[in-house]
Amino acid sequence: MPKRDKPASPPMLRAKLWVEVDGEPALTEDGADLLDQIHATGSLSEAARRLRFSYRRAWLLVDAMNRRWDPPLVTTATGGERGGGSVLTPRGQRVLASYRDLQIQLEYLLGQAGDPFKIT
Amino acid sequence: MPKRDKPASPPMLRAKLWVEVDGEPALTEDGADLLDQIHATGSLSEAARRLRFSYRRAWLLVDAMNRRWDPPLVTTATGGERGGGSVLTPRGQRVLASYRDLQIQLEYLLGQAGDPFKIT
Repeated sequence: MPKRDKPASPPMLRAKLWVEVDGEPALTEDGADLLDQIHATGSLSEAARRLRFSYRRAWLLVDAMNRRWDPPLVTTATGGERGGGSVLTPRGQRVLASYRDLQIQLEYLLGQAGDPFKIT
Repeated sequence: MPKRDKPASPPMLRAKLWVEVDGEPALTEDGADLLDQIHATGSLSEAARRLRFSYRRAWLLVDAMNRRWDPPLVTTATGGERGGGSVLTPRGQRVLASYRDLQIQLEYLLGQAGDPFKIT
């Protein structure tokens, strides 16, 4: 084996949580961030702007999520005062809250682990 | 939003756990599987074969891990009866055990969650 570089920082635990439906991603970190921003702004384009996603990317992400959940997570209003606005459905709010709750539990688990790779 | 497909299976929680050193992957699921097989077989080529990794891929993966951990996780013997054999260092054994232990805790967490996305 060739020489190794000296590590300059301690090993860091990382984890990623997502939801699949039929083996396809149904809620990812990016998706959850987008739902958060839709909830905060009521607008898909504003949500996309805040996350520096292209509008196309944000739209496709919402579309992919909506296709995998029944009922869907986001509805887009057409016409009326807020024509074009997007809102989370009650289902979308619950799914997002469950995901965030699990993320917190996961972070807690990793935090509890401390530095399991420490040389003792 | 266009029509959505009906989901044919319930939402499934997925998670991935890895370790980074200096922002680079230092232990991944593939890496842990490779360490397991090196430990079981004492041979990098046999470990690679069992996992259907090319020898090159397995070698690069071990090299990348060894560069990020100090002391390294795997040593390769040269010469002697078992020339070319690979073994986990004590450090490698401990790091692998810690990773597997955390994976079990993570699976438990996800299992405990049941179906958090169920419509109630």
